[in-house]
Amino acid sequence: MIHKLTSEERATQLASLAGWNAATGRDAIQRQFSFADFNEAFGFMTRVAIKAQEMDHHPEWFNVYNKVEITLSTHEANGLTERDIKLAQFIDGIAKTASRD
Amino acid sequence: MIHKLTSEERATQLASLAGWNAATGRDAIQRQFSFADFNEAFGFMTRVAIKAQEMDHHPEWFNVYNKVEITLSTHEANGLTERDIKLAQFIDGIAKTASRD
Repeated sequence: MIHKLTSEERATQLASLAGWNAATGRDAIQRQFSFADFNEAFGFMTRVAIKAQEMDHHPEWFNVYNKVEITLSTHEANGLTERDIKLAQFIDGIAKTASRD
Repeated sequence: MIHKLTSEERATQLASLAGWNAATGRDAIQRQFSFADFNEAFGFMTRVAIKAQEMDHHPEWFNVYNKVEITLSTHEANGLTERDIKLAQFIDGIAKTASRD
């Protein structure tokens, strides 16, 4: 079973992820992205989807037009794990060039 | 400006859309779909995204793994219009072969 981050690991990792916030009421992290339009937002989602499938670790996400809100958590650990941090880092890497936030 | 459906039109159209429900607290319709896995769910979303872009009418949607929850409404009419019905019909057409619900 995948190791759930300790509160110390959690704090260190979250500090390195600018823009991500702890979700309220559950052990998860969230970030909202804004893009120029739907084309750009869904293109971004598609890149994340392909990575998520490769990692076998999937986001919870909401999209309306140019906005994408992503929540990351590891169901089988019932909280944050290294997988969430890795996926968040990938997302930030591709959002740097795409996001308008 | 696009015509908002009258309550009579709305009732007739909704009756023809099995599985869609009126949203609570706003003039919108919603439906949830379940698929075999994330690959199938995101493939479905991609087909809807391409159609939405072609129609210049976009859904609000939430996805987690194999589940997709879609909300349709027309912002500029502040309620349901013919565009929502058309997009819902398209979605139902492709979901027939894909959805497990």
